Amino acid sequence: MGSRLVSKTLIIGAAGMIGRKLSLQFSREDLLLHDVVPFDGASFVSDLSAPGEAEKLVASRPELIFHLAAIVSGEAEADFDKGYRINLDGTRRLFEAIRKVGDGYKPRVVFTSSIAVFGAPFPEAIGDEFLNAPLTSYGTQKTIGELLLSDYSRRGFFDGIGIRLPTICVRPGKPNKAASGFFSGIIREPLAGQEALLPVPETVRHWFASPRAAIGFLLHAAKLDTAQLGNRRNLSMPGVSATVGEQIEALRKVAGEKAARLIRREPDATIMRIVEGWPRNFDARRALALGFRADASFEDIIRIHVADELQKSSAPRTNSA
Amino acid sequence: MGSRLVSKTLIIGAAGMIGRKLSLQFSREDLLLHDVVPFDGASFVSDLSAPGEAEKLVASRPELIFHLAAIVSGEAEADFDKGYRINLDGTRRLFEAIRKVGDGYKPRVVFTSSIAVFGAPFPEAIGDEFLNAPLTSYGTQKTIGELLLSDYSRRGFFDGIGIRLPTICVRPGKPNKAASGFFSGIIREPLAGQEALLPVPETVRHWFASPRAAIGFLLHAAKLDTAQLGNRRNLSMPGVSATVGEQIEALRKVAGEKAARLIRREPDATIMRIVEGWPRNFDARRALALGFRADASFEDIIRIHVADELQKSSAPRTNSA
Repeated sequence: MGSRLVSKTLIIGAAGMIGRKLSLQFSREDLLLHDVVPFDGASFVSDLSAPGEAEKLVASRPELIFHLAAIVSGEAEADFDKGYRINLDGTRRLFEAIRKVGDGYKPRVVFTSSIAVFGAPFPEAIGDEFLNAPLTSYGTQKTIGELLLSDYSRRGFFDGIGIRLPTICVRPGKPNKAASGFFSGIIREPLAGQEALLPVPETVRHWFASPRAAIGFLLHAAKLDTAQLGNRRNLSMPGVSATVGEQIEALRKVAGEKAARLIRREPDATIMRIVEGWPRNFDARRALALGFRADASFEDIIRIHVADELQKSSAPRTNSA
Repeated sequence: MGSRLVSKTLIIGAAGMIGRKLSLQFSREDLLLHDVVPFDGASFVSDLSAPGEAEKLVASRPELIFHLAAIVSGEAEADFDKGYRINLDGTRRLFEAIRKVGDGYKPRVVFTSSIAVFGAPFPEAIGDEFLNAPLTSYGTQKTIGELLLSDYSRRGFFDGIGIRLPTICVRPGKPNKAASGFFSGIIREPLAGQEALLPVPETVRHWFASPRAAIGFLLHAAKLDTAQLGNRRNLSMPGVSATVGEQIEALRKVAGEKAARLIRREPDATIMRIVEGWPRNFDARRALALGFRADASFEDIIRIHVADELQKSSAPRTNSA
């Protein structure tokens, strides 16, 4: 990849887990990296929603833009104004800044959306024509981002593609307080010899992709012939649908009974209620036909975590402070 | 209706065709009427998207708000900035103004959306779970309004309901340049003894409601127990699906062969291309189950136009300048 693909690549939200892994896929000299938090190698540190900041990011006319920046679900729910300011206004300011460059500038824009654009009740598997009825402010903001991306693309202001990521699993790093945190925790902690809490029954089903698969989606989206998309530029990515019971069984296969025994059941009604509104399974036919590839199984998702996070050696380290 | 229902009713976009007809359904002393264009009986004349204006509209805490104001499809497509400013920012400013009243204020908000939130390709009939993939900036802005309405309602800031109106037919008044204008023109002009142009083949199918049915939808939405909606607060209204050929046959039945002969075929490839992207038919099951009622047939739609516009006598006149 890298300079062969485009002249300049801008990654907005580059300090996050996906942003850091994505950055490693490009030659450093081709990259413009942005985040609101300072980090090693940053080209810009700013609040995307502040007047004039988006304009600075696109002033050098990067031909490929990954827009990964977002206030996450829990925080957007807790802080209504902040969620709308960053996730809606920030995204709109970026799109407006690109439009206003004019002069034939028409970059590829890859926008990370989320399965949070869907809300229960669901069919058995969510198809490509299922309505967006999000049940969180975050999901609402991501859906609005998708709609703006489609309209700006249809108008010819840029060449956009929206990628609805499954829940990323196994997320490396420390446990966090996200309601979805346990999906990674029950794998990551036992692999590190530590206890993990499981707040929901083993029958809970959810939709997963490894960080490696997510990076694959973004790179594929960057190269895709978007003429194939018609006017529907937002795609549910393929993933692995697994119950918590199947997750645990896969852990047992990869790391043995001892690891599986480190999972402690501690039912939490609040988390259960939140999780009940989340997608469980997709029929991601369009994305598959367009060449997006999911992990092969939940066992593979665990093996990828082991290979990329626990056994990694030669890969250059980015800041993970 | 009127004072029995609520203490105060605000109609935003009250000078439009639907706004004027809706106003007549309430006692004058209960009404606050707003539009951007001056009109008889206006309580407010202002640009909803201008800072501070939305706050003035809700300062007296109206318990029922109809938000009908919009830049229409053709103009929103021709003037990108104006469409987003009025249809997105104006709507958001209104919702924010309501939220910021606080202090237990939680009005019913009835928002007129449109079948333009859908874009081709379509199934045979568009169901209640079909995706929103609009093909115009107007449709994009209406979809965003729907999403905001859902999220603000879920958060408890107001009690919202979005009503996706079919194409209103027969629109009274002069012919206009909207691409959809001919659907009304081929009925209205012949009934008035005048020639009408038909730019598309008779096989074109579309989705209609009379102005009377539209007013019925809005009044029903104002009274509905919204607990029945769950978190899906935007509803495709029932309507009449008819081909242009069926429209003409209905005209023939109501007004005779002489009227039907006043329709002159003048194919227009541009209009045909636009119309091809429009919805043709719906399966509006949810709205029907909730008690929304469509016109019985296209013949009835014509008879309603004759009764309400051509034979009207006792109904008080609003400004129609």
